[in-house]
Amino acid sequence: MKVRTEDGIKDMSAVWFDGGKVMMIDQRELPHSIRITGFDDYGDVVEAIRNMTVRGAPSIGAAAAYAMCLAALSGADMDKASADIKAARPTANDLFFATDHMHRLIKDGQDPVTAAEDYANMIIWKCTRIGEHGSKLIKDGMRIMTHCNAGALATVDVGTALAPMRKARDEGRRFFVYASETRPRLQGMQLTAWELNQEGIDHAIIPDGASAYYMEKGVDLIITGADRITANGDFANKIGTLDKAIAAKYFGIPFYVAAPISTFDFDTGTGGDIVIEQRSEREVTEIAGVRIAPEGSPALNPAFDVTPAGLVTGFITENGILDPKDIRMVLDDE
Amino acid sequence: MKVRTEDGIKDMSAVWFDGGKVMMIDQRELPHSIRITGFDDYGDVVEAIRNMTVRGAPSIGAAAAYAMCLAALSGADMDKASADIKAARPTANDLFFATDHMHRLIKDGQDPVTAAEDYANMIIWKCTRIGEHGSKLIKDGMRIMTHCNAGALATVDVGTALAPMRKARDEGRRFFVYASETRPRLQGMQLTAWELNQEGIDHAIIPDGASAYYMEKGVDLIITGADRITANGDFANKIGTLDKAIAAKYFGIPFYVAAPISTFDFDTGTGGDIVIEQRSEREVTEIAGVRIAPEGSPALNPAFDVTPAGLVTGFITENGILDPKDIRMVLDDE
Repeated sequence: MKVRTEDGIKDMSAVWFDGGKVMMIDQRELPHSIRITGFDDYGDVVEAIRNMTVRGAPSIGAAAAYAMCLAALSGADMDKASADIKAARPTANDLFFATDHMHRLIKDGQDPVTAAEDYANMIIWKCTRIGEHGSKLIKDGMRIMTHCNAGALATVDVGTALAPMRKARDEGRRFFVYASETRPRLQGMQLTAWELNQEGIDHAIIPDGASAYYMEKGVDLIITGADRITANGDFANKIGTLDKAIAAKYFGIPFYVAAPISTFDFDTGTGGDIVIEQRSEREVTEIAGVRIAPEGSPALNPAFDVTPAGLVTGFITENGILDPKDIRMVLDDE
Repeated sequence: MKVRTEDGIKDMSAVWFDGGKVMMIDQRELPHSIRITGFDDYGDVVEAIRNMTVRGAPSIGAAAAYAMCLAALSGADMDKASADIKAARPTANDLFFATDHMHRLIKDGQDPVTAAEDYANMIIWKCTRIGEHGSKLIKDGMRIMTHCNAGALATVDVGTALAPMRKARDEGRRFFVYASETRPRLQGMQLTAWELNQEGIDHAIIPDGASAYYMEKGVDLIITGADRITANGDFANKIGTLDKAIAAKYFGIPFYVAAPISTFDFDTGTGGDIVIEQRSEREVTEIAGVRIAPEGSPALNPAFDVTPAGLVTGFITENGILDPKDIRMVLDDE
């Protein structure tokens, strides 16, 4: 991704390995400052995952792979390192997957640096392919809407929902992006708008409740990410996605979901089977530790909602754009 | 409305006249503290309207009526007072209407205090009737959703969307209210939740983007206010209302709009004729004067959206509940 620094525009990933260190953009400091930190001890990477210096499931996976690499290079007990790393956060599946994957390869005698870089590059490769397939949907002059952050910060580089926009821009097309702010944690405002601004893509932040207003005025395409896609094509994504998908259907606007094949979970039949994480009400009722809600008024804070397959125009994957009705067939070919 | 103070629960309006002073709850201090201020100079009331000590069009109208009353009592030049008061804010129609109304009555020799109190009481009377009609929709155990603040603070007392809830509670029914926070200015969180908490009505604040999530889980009734209803039954209301109305249609949830007949504007044919106020992007990009958005990312901040008549189940007015198709007929009876 492009990052505008005092020394000009740099091409940078969210997480990478350089000079024996795991490097990362400190996402807690965004959008206000761009701070790069490096760690040569795997325990520090565990802490960086825990305190959200790095966030976004694929980026967390890459950080975990690099942490395993540091552990191997320092001659640490790999069983203990693996357990420490997997304990960094409770729910990110990529964290467990990446750690186990690296554990296996290192046991097999593979070079830890190469193995970790391969893991991160595989994510970037998938996102790049998503960008290539998805960019075909983007015509010159279009108005596109997205939600939350399914960008390079979350996926090591390139992004999922933002990948087609980066590719279309690289191909010289101009378009405008509405980034809905995504309360309560404001990932749309603070991460997606930041990325679009770094890339020089025209955009504006809108309150989540202004989505239908702008759709009515004219939105040509909506692209979001997905946290999990079930066997019937339902998908879970950041709270507020369902509202947009329903409004898109009402206004006849194509609604696409960009995600790698690894997001498909065929062990789960429908979206109704997904357990939705309920997060602390303080994310809603406080800003920077200061209470903004009335004393005595509780808040509810579901992290995700589930959008039914019937509202999805297509899934943009590294294997192409899939119709929700065809996903099982296509995936069976894998 | 009920207000919980250190001396127990008091029954209070948003604006009233007492001991030669215009009294009001300082709405800028809500929900954090309940501060009552009084003014005996009409210029101070003008400033209170300007700085949003009092807000909500009907409450502003009542404050203007009382300001005219103070002007008359102090022997001020009534033409000048009228011009000063009408200049307090640019767009609130009630401000101009109330000021002209009082100007006329005072010229006619009516008692200024009685005339102003009559004006405020007329608003309360209409809201009370809206509550009586609307409360019939509320059954025991219902889950109700509302948006923004169409409560007592905005309408001198009782409220419009909140009036049926107050009445149903008075009649002993129990129900649960989802108050969507209403970004960017958070009137749902900071005013509606505050009112519901004062009244002891079960409720929770939700992010605007969680509306469809809770509708899918089960909402029985949605009631919002309206800023303007056009001849064909379209209506303008706080941004985010349209998203809810579309989702309500999708889930088959009754969607009602509570507003006095004076909100109907038959000189405007359809919602498409309404010019939407675009407010400062800083309401979106800043919290308490601190920028939360990335530098260089603009924001858009439309204050209202327009919901088409086809998404409205009924208008709850002081004359009863009107089907959108019947509004002209019923109003012609007036």
